[in-house]
Amino acid sequence: MTKKDRNIYLTNIPLEEAQKQYFSEINSLNSCINTEIIPVVESLNRVTTKPVFAKKSSPNYNAAAMDGIAVISNATFEATESNPVYLKLEENFIYINTGGYIRDPYNAVIMIEDVVEVDENTVEIRQPATPWQHVRPIGEDIVESELIISANHNIRSMDIGALLAGQIINLEVYKLPRVGIIPTGSEIVQVEEELSIGKIIDTNSSMFAAMVMEYNGIPKKYEVVPDEYDLIKSKIIEATNENDIVVINAGSSAGSKDYTVNVLREIGDVLIHGVATKPGKPAILAIVNGKPVIGIPGYPVSAYFVFEFFVKPLLFQYNRQMLDEHKKVNSILSRRIVSSLKHEEFIRLKLGVVNDKVIATPLDRGAGVTMSLVKADGILVVPQRVEGYEAGIEVEVQLLKSISEINNTIVSIGSHDLVMDILSNELHLNRSNVFLSSAHVGSLGGIMAMKKGECHISPIHLMDEETGDYNNSYIKKYLNSSDYAIIKFVKRSQGLMVKKGNPLNIQYVKDLTRSDIQFVNRQRGAGTRILLDYYLDKNEITASDIRGYDREFNTHMAVAAAVAGKSADCGMGVLSAAKAMGLDFIPIAWEDYDLCISKEMLEDKKITSLISVMKSEEFISKIAKLDGYSTDNIGDIVYI
Amino acid sequence: MTKKDRNIYLTNIPLEEAQKQYFSEINSLNSCINTEIIPVVESLNRVTTKPVFAKKSSPNYNAAAMDGIAVISNATFEATESNPVYLKLEENFIYINTGGYIRDPYNAVIMIEDVVEVDENTVEIRQPATPWQHVRPIGEDIVESELIISANHNIRSMDIGALLAGQIINLEVYKLPRVGIIPTGSEIVQVEEELSIGKIIDTNSSMFAAMVMEYNGIPKKYEVVPDEYDLIKSKIIEATNENDIVVINAGSSAGSKDYTVNVLREIGDVLIHGVATKPGKPAILAIVNGKPVIGIPGYPVSAYFVFEFFVKPLLFQYNRQMLDEHKKVNSILSRRIVSSLKHEEFIRLKLGVVNDKVIATPLDRGAGVTMSLVKADGILVVPQRVEGYEAGIEVEVQLLKSISEINNTIVSIGSHDLVMDILSNELHLNRSNVFLSSAHVGSLGGIMAMKKGECHISPIHLMDEETGDYNNSYIKKYLNSSDYAIIKFVKRSQGLMVKKGNPLNIQYVKDLTRSDIQFVNRQRGAGTRILLDYYLDKNEITASDIRGYDREFNTHMAVAAAVAGKSADCGMGVLSAAKAMGLDFIPIAWEDYDLCISKEMLEDKKITSLISVMKSEEFISKIAKLDGYSTDNIGDIVYI
Repeated sequence: MTKKDRNIYLTNIPLEEAQKQYFSEINSLNSCINTEIIPVVESLNRVTTKPVFAKKSSPNYNAAAMDGIAVISNATFEATESNPVYLKLEENFIYINTGGYIRDPYNAVIMIEDVVEVDENTVEIRQPATPWQHVRPIGEDIVESELIISANHNIRSMDIGALLAGQIINLEVYKLPRVGIIPTGSEIVQVEEELSIGKIIDTNSSMFAAMVMEYNGIPKKYEVVPDEYDLIKSKIIEATNENDIVVINAGSSAGSKDYTVNVLREIGDVLIHGVATKPGKPAILAIVNGKPVIGIPGYPVSAYFVFEFFVKPLLFQYNRQMLDEHKKVNSILSRRIVSSLKHEEFIRLKLGVVNDKVIATPLDRGAGVTMSLVKADGILVVPQRVEGYEAGIEVEVQLLKSISEINNTIVSIGSHDLVMDILSNELHLNRSNVFLSSAHVGSLGGIMAMKKGECHISPIHLMDEETGDYNNSYIKKYLNSSDYAIIKFVKRSQGLMVKKGNPLNIQYVKDLTRSDIQFVNRQRGAGTRILLDYYLDKNEITASDIRGYDREFNTHMAVAAAVAGKSADCGMGVLSAAKAMGLDFIPIAWEDYDLCISKEMLEDKKITSLISVMKSEEFISKIAKLDGYSTDNIGDIVYI
Repeated sequence: MTKKDRNIYLTNIPLEEAQKQYFSEINSLNSCINTEIIPVVESLNRVTTKPVFAKKSSPNYNAAAMDGIAVISNATFEATESNPVYLKLEENFIYINTGGYIRDPYNAVIMIEDVVEVDENTVEIRQPATPWQHVRPIGEDIVESELIISANHNIRSMDIGALLAGQIINLEVYKLPRVGIIPTGSEIVQVEEELSIGKIIDTNSSMFAAMVMEYNGIPKKYEVVPDEYDLIKSKIIEATNENDIVVINAGSSAGSKDYTVNVLREIGDVLIHGVATKPGKPAILAIVNGKPVIGIPGYPVSAYFVFEFFVKPLLFQYNRQMLDEHKKVNSILSRRIVSSLKHEEFIRLKLGVVNDKVIATPLDRGAGVTMSLVKADGILVVPQRVEGYEAGIEVEVQLLKSISEINNTIVSIGSHDLVMDILSNELHLNRSNVFLSSAHVGSLGGIMAMKKGECHISPIHLMDEETGDYNNSYIKKYLNSSDYAIIKFVKRSQGLMVKKGNPLNIQYVKDLTRSDIQFVNRQRGAGTRILLDYYLDKNEITASDIRGYDREFNTHMAVAAAVAGKSADCGMGVLSAAKAMGLDFIPIAWEDYDLCISKEMLEDKKITSLISVMKSEEFISKIAKLDGYSTDNIGDIVYI
């Protein structure tokens, strides 16, 4: 397989143009969805094919609108405060409840509050009743043959009530569009299967199926098709026969095994291959057998966006529904964003409200980083011909969560530790209306974010190289220290993480200069890197003497994962990360991992909740179960 | 049954206070919902009971991030534009696809675009590859033991993808809250049963069931319980055993058969009976058997609101989710609203965008008028101690539809005719993104709305009593006529609607003065009323000579329904309404029913769609099927 067998040339059509072109082509197919008759009581969220008119009036008799007595209005006309009228039961009045039948000769209702009982059979009335007062005339609610709901109407709960009131039992709706989902790739396995090296779990099919259900379609997942031209071809044909829309996952790019586009060219029309979006570029938009067939790239984030771009609007179109507009919010960008002029880029963001401003912090932009989608609170769309935005700029962000959830989120920017994840959970478990969101930029990055007013708290572990003390001196140096405080969190054990059994017999920091050792480092500004540099200095080691000193990861776990894999032998990090990845650990130092916070925020309800959770027995006992932590002063406030 | 047996005294607790009191009581019950283990692939919209951490890293091997060749980076270090390096297949490079396994000794990927093929086994490289470039390291997506989602998290499609990527197959979620729905009332029948006089269809149970499903609960509808104390009692006990929440419908008020509150007092605690809202006042908030039991009034609109006020928040609380904030929009009130100081009032509104302003028009406020809920685009909340709002005031409205749907709505205010309903449908069927919303205020009301800029079109049929001509002279009189035009619609037959077989032998307008005839009229400003007055004048009849001249209804169909019922013998209206209700009809006149419109709006895309639908064969043939209409000039524009 050489370069010649590959489809390396993709088009770069702007998203909006691609959508317009493709959807109008699909429209012209007139491949209408079939209809079916269903009971009204099961019609929630279904879409009517035609207008529905009431069969009967509701109420279908003149009914009392109040609890009270039914009277013949003539008999009350003379009643005044000074000259009451007396009525006799069953002669010229009856007791009646709301909804009761106003039978002849009665034609008005007097509220029970306005009735004075004289004896069992007599009441006194001090005001005349006008004809038909407090009577619900026939059809007050719904008049026979009145339009209840129109065609193409998405049925809601109140519509079901109204339809039944109009005595509609069944009605015609569009069948739900069926979406066939075909995973392809010889490397793809199901989650239950063994995950050997080179295998990838099929996560997208289930994500797509959930999206189809969310958007009112019926998903059909096919079994994984290996990378074989004829198998892919016959499966696509089968799926177009069984569904209204077909998505093929992966193989949409230009790799040597990316057969999808060639298959689609053989059995149908490929309208577009390659859209000017990032993520999502290698999307294929085709028509096979009169049905839309969409080739979706394999990276989970790309997969999500391409589905949103092309399959979601089709589902809405088939269901005759308008797409909801995105909820939007103006936010201040906390970091600069650089984007290519070639693509319209969709950037995932964390949002938080700090000092009454919504602060947007970009998440990892890799198309393969599913967690950037899971963690995202919003999406920033950078148009195709825009180079990016500077930090501090106001941008409009599409919301993925509700603004009240974002308002209730404690924004943490700083160093990462497993205890932050546990705290986040414990907080949300105890105060389900408070959220903790963490961005991992290292300790110094956290202090800078605090300075710029971009976060509520900063987890930091920064050793003063002169005194050996933690954190306070950095706050004094970088912030107006009288405005800040520290919430004590944990002491934790830092050290060298090495492969299980320590095959290279690494013992000391000075071993890192050995030529047989491949190191991985943390990013600049990370407290762990400052700690390493402190020990390198103490041992008079130059950074350039260490292989891999420049290879940077942003979290302890990522470093641990690199060591657990084949790409590194050693990295610095916390004991909990080493244990989590089954690594050996050579302890170097105990350090203070604390939360920096503005004094003002200490009064905030979210923060008082956070502190009370930190001090709770449940939380402390969870930390105690991990190795390498102590919690002696947890939750104490230290003023600087 | 006398007044003494009734519970006429309800409290009047403000809604917010009632919610706070009741929900905190429910909270203190600690009646937690049970949990269950379910497959991740079926977990959409379910809520986690605890944090979920990844079991495996993803990818779990170092993977190619691009299509290209895997190389040993050392072997490329010398490559420059002028001094290319040549690599040999299987010696120091292999071809690799995105996601492929980077096996030892390879440690970098060069994109296929940057590779020049020399022969089948040789490629030329003009740039060095840095170690680990274009390689997805182990755990790039998800690192083993990383937090994927927290506790109390509502699972979305992307979460399902991430969970599977972390090799999570099953997870623990809260069971969905079960809601028992008990309809009560000896007058209540199911929609399939015969609807005799005095019977009411059970519409609320199915509306509630749909609402429960919408809010992520499992509804259980019980059979209708007749108004018998012991039967109601045992059914409530049964339902509290089988469900997490119980709603009892109707019987919550103070009628002689409203046993609910007494039953609840006997078997549990009634915390609140009577809330200061309109609609919704007679709500009962109780606890029985450790479960919340909510008594909901029977009127459909009250029922909807009380469910929204009390059951919806409970479902969200049980599902550990925050309530969504309402989408809101600022609107200009087109009519004055008067509200009682005693209640917080929830007023249903039609919304439309006219001249770039959102115009809000109040709908019928009766608690029994289901259609006011079906037709509503938004809700205006008038606080308890506010008397109301003047027309022209800007108010904040909670949206029930999307703002883009409201933007695409043609707002019609004026006279009602069945052909408007048919047009609305036909329009939406052909242009699913255009909506037509009609408020029925009569022809003169429509012209006034047009003058105030509250609508796009006004259907009118106003006869000039001097010339006998229709519509034009009224536009000249009330509007700046050079700015307006008429879209010709239909000619229609107006006449007297009388009971089937015309038992009272009504023949002429002058018969209406007969003492044995009960008339029903249309409201002031309605074209039909102006037409009647014209004929009364011609016949020298005084209004006060007609019994029922002052009893007003707002539509032809409502008048026809009154005649079909027992409350009237005759009313004036169109032939189609008479036929729809099975009435006889004595024709009086043919009149022009046209649409008044501003010239400016004639250019609007919504209106050009409307006109092309009016002129379409399908629409005209639908009108032709009705009696009493002609469509000779339909869709023509007449300038005034």
